[in-house]
Amino acid sequence: MKRILILGGGFGGVYTAGRLEKLLSPDEASICLVNRENYFVYQPMLPEVISGSIGLTDVVSPIRRLCPRTQLIMREVENIDLQNRTVTVSPGFRPRRLELPYDYLVIALGGVTSFYGMPGMLEHSLPFRTLSDAIVLRNRIIHCLEEADVETDVELRRKLVTFVVSGGGFSGVEVIAEVNDFVRAVARHYPRIPREEIRCVLLHSRERILQEMDEGLALFAQKILAARGVELHLGDRLVAATSEKAILKSGAEILSKTIVSTVPSAMPPVLEKLDCAKEKGRLLVNEQLALQGHEGQVWAVGDCAFIKTVSGTQAPPTAQHATREAETVAANIHAEIRGGGRTAFAFEGLGKLGALGHNCAIAEVFGIKISGLPAWLLWRAIYLMKLPGLNTKIRVAADWLIALLLPPDLAQLSLARMSGFHEQHFTPGETVFHEGDLGDFVYVIQVGECDVLRTIDGQEQKLAELKAGDYFGEMAVLSDASRNATVRARTAMNVLLIPKRDFDKLKANVPAFGEVFSALARQRSGQ
Amino acid sequence: MKRILILGGGFGGVYTAGRLEKLLSPDEASICLVNRENYFVYQPMLPEVISGSIGLTDVVSPIRRLCPRTQLIMREVENIDLQNRTVTVSPGFRPRRLELPYDYLVIALGGVTSFYGMPGMLEHSLPFRTLSDAIVLRNRIIHCLEEADVETDVELRRKLVTFVVSGGGFSGVEVIAEVNDFVRAVARHYPRIPREEIRCVLLHSRERILQEMDEGLALFAQKILAARGVELHLGDRLVAATSEKAILKSGAEILSKTIVSTVPSAMPPVLEKLDCAKEKGRLLVNEQLALQGHEGQVWAVGDCAFIKTVSGTQAPPTAQHATREAETVAANIHAEIRGGGRTAFAFEGLGKLGALGHNCAIAEVFGIKISGLPAWLLWRAIYLMKLPGLNTKIRVAADWLIALLLPPDLAQLSLARMSGFHEQHFTPGETVFHEGDLGDFVYVIQVGECDVLRTIDGQEQKLAELKAGDYFGEMAVLSDASRNATVRARTAMNVLLIPKRDFDKLKANVPAFGEVFSALARQRSGQ
Repeated sequence: MKRILILGGGFGGVYTAGRLEKLLSPDEASICLVNRENYFVYQPMLPEVISGSIGLTDVVSPIRRLCPRTQLIMREVENIDLQNRTVTVSPGFRPRRLELPYDYLVIALGGVTSFYGMPGMLEHSLPFRTLSDAIVLRNRIIHCLEEADVETDVELRRKLVTFVVSGGGFSGVEVIAEVNDFVRAVARHYPRIPREEIRCVLLHSRERILQEMDEGLALFAQKILAARGVELHLGDRLVAATSEKAILKSGAEILSKTIVSTVPSAMPPVLEKLDCAKEKGRLLVNEQLALQGHEGQVWAVGDCAFIKTVSGTQAPPTAQHATREAETVAANIHAEIRGGGRTAFAFEGLGKLGALGHNCAIAEVFGIKISGLPAWLLWRAIYLMKLPGLNTKIRVAADWLIALLLPPDLAQLSLARMSGFHEQHFTPGETVFHEGDLGDFVYVIQVGECDVLRTIDGQEQKLAELKAGDYFGEMAVLSDASRNATVRARTAMNVLLIPKRDFDKLKANVPAFGEVFSALARQRSGQ
Repeated sequence: MKRILILGGGFGGVYTAGRLEKLLSPDEASICLVNRENYFVYQPMLPEVISGSIGLTDVVSPIRRLCPRTQLIMREVENIDLQNRTVTVSPGFRPRRLELPYDYLVIALGGVTSFYGMPGMLEHSLPFRTLSDAIVLRNRIIHCLEEADVETDVELRRKLVTFVVSGGGFSGVEVIAEVNDFVRAVARHYPRIPREEIRCVLLHSRERILQEMDEGLALFAQKILAARGVELHLGDRLVAATSEKAILKSGAEILSKTIVSTVPSAMPPVLEKLDCAKEKGRLLVNEQLALQGHEGQVWAVGDCAFIKTVSGTQAPPTAQHATREAETVAANIHAEIRGGGRTAFAFEGLGKLGALGHNCAIAEVFGIKISGLPAWLLWRAIYLMKLPGLNTKIRVAADWLIALLLPPDLAQLSLARMSGFHEQHFTPGETVFHEGDLGDFVYVIQVGECDVLRTIDGQEQKLAELKAGDYFGEMAVLSDASRNATVRARTAMNVLLIPKRDFDKLKANVPAFGEVFSALARQRSGQ
């Protein structure tokens, strides 16, 4: 019996497994799928999680239900050994790795968000790829509104109610449309936020959004978004971020606490280190979607693969393409097992659909251009039809019906207690903390320099200059007091933040660690 | 204008705010409510989140929508100053605390789960109070099933599919009923888990469950639970827990990775330190629900208050009592502002309802006893009627309808990336890690002693004994290798675990920290 191993549970992986279950009998081959989650995410509907117009779990389907004959392994792929035909996955409850041998391998691991060369983006911008990303963004928006409603400092309040989305492709447009609809719909529950302070900004590097679409439709989309209150910043793009602002290529800055990036994509690290042919940061496959040098054994589909159709155009990273790629791979595995000719990937796309929020969309289907409510109805009908599983269809249809009748829900499901160490990026002149603030973190400078300042008789005086490798902020944390100085970045600066709770625990358990900081505090207060 | 401040957004707090909005005009008093979340949780339905028979957000209602005239402050209460009539709340985005002055204060902070004197419970058992708790439990169950389906070690697999709930009151009974229904309903998707290995265990210290209920109904409940596969362990109770087992008072042990405790309750720390009269660990109030010594100024309602009705019986911590307590307090605040007589709390309870899972419940209403399907229908009807807000009613009704038609969803929404330091408890003889395991944590012994063992020529040899304050596990983490020895607890032991990721980050940023462990590793490998 042949062992088929599929890596990844997105459109590529799940549709390959589903197709193979139909093509092969259970005694011909075992099918095993490795995915970090036990569910498949219906990506095109992910932006709707932001406003809650569909329930959190309705955008996902359990893989075990979609592919009942496939063995699901809910772990991370750690290594692929093409020579020995073995895949290693992360440990579960017991700290041992699991090795999975295979006869046929399908790589469908998708992409990851990469912010290489963009300072502060990793620390301060939110990606939008997974269900967790969508829920985190929703919670961030609600948290900002809650805080803005209490905040009396106008400058901070404006930052809290400014939401920036980077990238004017389908994903960015749908995200900003949902964010804008949601924020403006729930704003009436926050009476202390002046409506005119709310800003939703879309950044795009080109002169118009939705480059993949017909120009007329794209300009229609721009008009609709602008009319609904979205600010479009075209011909400029995000290059850096801090906890307070988005920094653009033109040098412009947008003060905001919420920056979403839908732009960059890279291969997962486990594929980066894979020794095989690559093109534009993706796995290079032939027209049968087989990995070069591993024909008849290893295939790649979806966002992680560089795929050309028979006509020579590159297949875009969309659901409609991934599902057809899956069919091609399943047919070719079937051919390997049962014999027969190999199939080439020849799908050219049926059309393009983009949602613009409340009752509005644009579509190009079989060359016909549609916009507004008809396109929106088409979009819903197609997506509902394409949703895998009858159960999910019913749940989503019910949610949509309820969302038409009821206002959006604004409960913040803050499940992830943000804890542990993390990093922050500061631009020159930005303040790390102010005199009088609570001592909530101890800081280690990784890159850059900063000034320690104190206001004496109304005059700001410099107490010290600190550089990479220096610690600061330990005094207020050790003595449980307020900050006795202000710290301001002099150059661009990266710092590690150790939360007070973690600091106290380390100090209690590893005395040598605490002694480093106690000695420093004694020395500094002796000055 | 008078300032009314309400602490807590449960039944007590939200119903007080809602009632005051009706009784007072906006120019008479401002109403402000402080709560950690921006939503109200409908506690009686919380167990249904486990099986997903209602959506994650449908068991909650946004407080801003329930009490539109009340200012909501989404922060934690850090201090109550009764002398200066000021409440301090935690910082938001900016590290400064907020001080809230008041003329009238309502304390409705509920209880917290306390495991004082029960070793390992804090580290290894799951509480069941908040929406997060319910989602965490659901995710843990699904994670255990996913791992059990892959696991080949029979002993570990049995631990993974054993679910223990401690406490045979309403909460514990409803939780075990939901867990049992859910696990058995989704088990068919896990073909590699032998059905007979699945165990759902309810622990209760008395000789029968549901002490508050009529004996006949309680025995009926026991019969139903047993028939559906729940094991009842009566006359025994949980006294300690490790990551592998529940330890009972009788000395018996139940091997399990999932232990839920619904039993202990204590006052929130901010009330512990409050200088006022207390009774049985709760705030003592008079029959008008005012705090002793602060009559006409401070009131307490719900789980954090010790309340006697006019007939002398103690009010139980249920929703029906909390909402009536809220009405009494609102009336008394109204009397303070407008004048008039004070109201005493006189509610004696309408009845008791307990759900037993799938289409079955028990009820005592106005002295009439009902059980089975009629009680279940009554339970659903009453809860739906009592749900605050029409929107929530519609959403829950739709969910219930869908849940009757569709099988439960089994997507694991693992949002909280469990990170950072944490602690573990071990009983004598338990293994911390095995030779050959991955080096995933560095350990610090807080209490207790352990042996370091290595198998040489098939013989287990003791390499070292370690005690409180000692570190271990650093060698495999530093060298990115497998464990070269087994560590086993010799006495009961508490350890701090530093994850490899955090350890590496600390080592890179605080060289003195890394040096402690590097020196230790050099010394130990030199032996």
